[in-house]
Amino acid sequence: MSEAKLKSLLTRDAGGTPPGRIVRALSQKGTMSPREIAESTGLAKSTVSTALNELRRTGMVVDGVVENSRTSGVGRPSTTVSLNPEAGTCVGMLIGRDFMQLIVADVSHAVLGERTVELDPDFSAADAAQVGARLLAEAYEENNLSRDTLLGVGIALGNPVNPNDGRMLRAGGMPAWAGLDIRAMFEPVLEQTIIADNESNCSAVAEMMWGAAIGYQDFVMFTLDEGIGGAIVSRGHVITGIAGAAGEFGHMSIDPEGPLCRCGNRGCLEVYATTKEPLRVASQRYGRPIEAPELVAMALAGDVGCQRLIEDTATIAGRGLGLIGAAINPPLIVVGGGFAAAGDLLLTPLEESFNKHTLVKRADVGGAARTRFVVSRFVENDACMGAVGLVLRRFGC
Amino acid sequence: MSEAKLKSLLTRDAGGTPPGRIVRALSQKGTMSPREIAESTGLAKSTVSTALNELRRTGMVVDGVVENSRTSGVGRPSTTVSLNPEAGTCVGMLIGRDFMQLIVADVSHAVLGERTVELDPDFSAADAAQVGARLLAEAYEENNLSRDTLLGVGIALGNPVNPNDGRMLRAGGMPAWAGLDIRAMFEPVLEQTIIADNESNCSAVAEMMWGAAIGYQDFVMFTLDEGIGGAIVSRGHVITGIAGAAGEFGHMSIDPEGPLCRCGNRGCLEVYATTKEPLRVASQRYGRPIEAPELVAMALAGDVGCQRLIEDTATIAGRGLGLIGAAINPPLIVVGGGFAAAGDLLLTPLEESFNKHTLVKRADVGGAARTRFVVSRFVENDACMGAVGLVLRRFGC
Repeated sequence: MSEAKLKSLLTRDAGGTPPGRIVRALSQKGTMSPREIAESTGLAKSTVSTALNELRRTGMVVDGVVENSRTSGVGRPSTTVSLNPEAGTCVGMLIGRDFMQLIVADVSHAVLGERTVELDPDFSAADAAQVGARLLAEAYEENNLSRDTLLGVGIALGNPVNPNDGRMLRAGGMPAWAGLDIRAMFEPVLEQTIIADNESNCSAVAEMMWGAAIGYQDFVMFTLDEGIGGAIVSRGHVITGIAGAAGEFGHMSIDPEGPLCRCGNRGCLEVYATTKEPLRVASQRYGRPIEAPELVAMALAGDVGCQRLIEDTATIAGRGLGLIGAAINPPLIVVGGGFAAAGDLLLTPLEESFNKHTLVKRADVGGAARTRFVVSRFVENDACMGAVGLVLRRFGC
Repeated sequence: MSEAKLKSLLTRDAGGTPPGRIVRALSQKGTMSPREIAESTGLAKSTVSTALNELRRTGMVVDGVVENSRTSGVGRPSTTVSLNPEAGTCVGMLIGRDFMQLIVADVSHAVLGERTVELDPDFSAADAAQVGARLLAEAYEENNLSRDTLLGVGIALGNPVNPNDGRMLRAGGMPAWAGLDIRAMFEPVLEQTIIADNESNCSAVAEMMWGAAIGYQDFVMFTLDEGIGGAIVSRGHVITGIAGAAGEFGHMSIDPEGPLCRCGNRGCLEVYATTKEPLRVASQRYGRPIEAPELVAMALAGDVGCQRLIEDTATIAGRGLGLIGAAINPPLIVVGGGFAAAGDLLLTPLEESFNKHTLVKRADVGGAARTRFVVSRFVENDACMGAVGLVLRRFGC
């Protein structure tokens, strides 16, 4: 198995051949059936079949079986293929206000190594590049991986990233980084191709490729955390927006006379519906700092106070989702963030509130035309996994 | 010139050949340069050139020159081609609560005939099909057109249309038509292929194909009329939503405790920012019924009262657009509806209010990353022209 061969199949020059087009499709979607490959690439089924045999022979793809809900109960599961995990590695980084997370994954998105370090709040981008280079070197060394297999580094960031010039916007969780060109800061230090995007867009990529949105070409990602983030996926692509700021659902104002938001507007959804206030109340109630995983665990164990804190947050968030429903009417809303692990304790009041505040009510349409709600699959590390996905997707056209 | 040949080139079976793919692209985009055709179809430039020569020889396409802003001032204008207007006809219908409008156009979207009839409010869909058939027959007879040239009938409707089953939703301007299958009602009577969609989606199609959004693959349509409508275009396609209700910006609630809206929610944008209230005030002020074109004319002539009515409406509408900016961050917002003819009198306060209420402020980014505002080109008949466009676009894949 030669990773050089994979790299060459992933580049555009080689991408016009049937094997190249199949490898690109698999690098974006993860796992596909031959029929899905034919539909996605526009190749004839017989051409797909021939090319897959060649790719199997050279060890580029391996066979598997679909296990997700698409096939459950409907006939026998179909055979699928995915890229051979041994064919290359990708690095995803998540840069927060006071930490950095790094994941090394193979092209089938299996995690080979993961590291998180805490940093001083408001560390500089120059520091971040140095720390990133160190984490990357350590992760490859510890796991006996060759840096030659590395296909690229994806970076997930708290602010929107302008797709025109690659610079971070002011709006977001890291205002001090506004105007910085992440690629220019990181590429010389890491000596790798860098693809940077907002963390919620990355989460959407992870859920689309490997998570709760598999099989959906159109969905909305809604991340309820210390802030509120989001992304809109249309026809399999994240809508970036002209300045990179599409999907910033936390800054939809639900009351123009409401309290000032850090973004400079008033009454933004983020002012009312994050995990911050319920965690503050829970911490006060129990006399010690309580983080989201513990609050969720207590709620799931039957603590009615913690259940109510999640429920109230969901009810306000549902207002904002009602606006999103009127504007986008998505087939699916994937809910991520700190409370996502609460499952139905979060989703039930969220859907109830959404139904009240949106245009198309449940009773208006049959089940197939209703917006579905699910929690994200990657609750802990969706943005960082999505940064891995950025690397694989960049080879798509 | 054989219209049968065009029909065959527009069908999918023939669509895989280079001429078929070019005809389909031109039927969707209207006018294109050979370079744009190559990019859009994925064909090699030499293949496009050869196929265009063949299409010119058989009279299917004709040459022209780009006149829009894309080329102004930048070198010499490029040669373009479009479908030969004599190659076929399309019908667009707009069905309102108390009127029907019909446009017959050739494939280059030149209007060959147009008729509008007033009807009793809340007429039935069965009546509408009969009236439509009569208008269509009259329009073809009066203009000495052969019905054999007719490629299909597009119908623009006041309610969203569910793309899954073709039925109209409850929400919208024609609640009595909820649940009706327009295609099933009209196809047997008109004996033509019917394509039905919401009127704002149709407006977006018209502006994308021939109007203010030419050259944009991504934009938002915002229609400020007696109601508020809209559409989101992403990668050249109108986002329909799972129930056909995407782009219903009028039903984004800007105050959950606000007055009841006809849709069953509270405080919808439509409750605050339509043309209704300013027209009521102007009519009262002048002691006679004043419609939008007259109010706009008076404002443009310097009537400060009429100017203020437009300005105040724009200021409230800008709040809603601020939400749309946070969610979608579109490159372009095309503003249509009754006040669009007021131009900057409408756009200036709208942009001002948008900038105040949205996330990415003008000052945050360079000009290239700012959301642009323009008024629609088809102020009078955008939805009906868009229904014509539906017919042409249905031949695209």
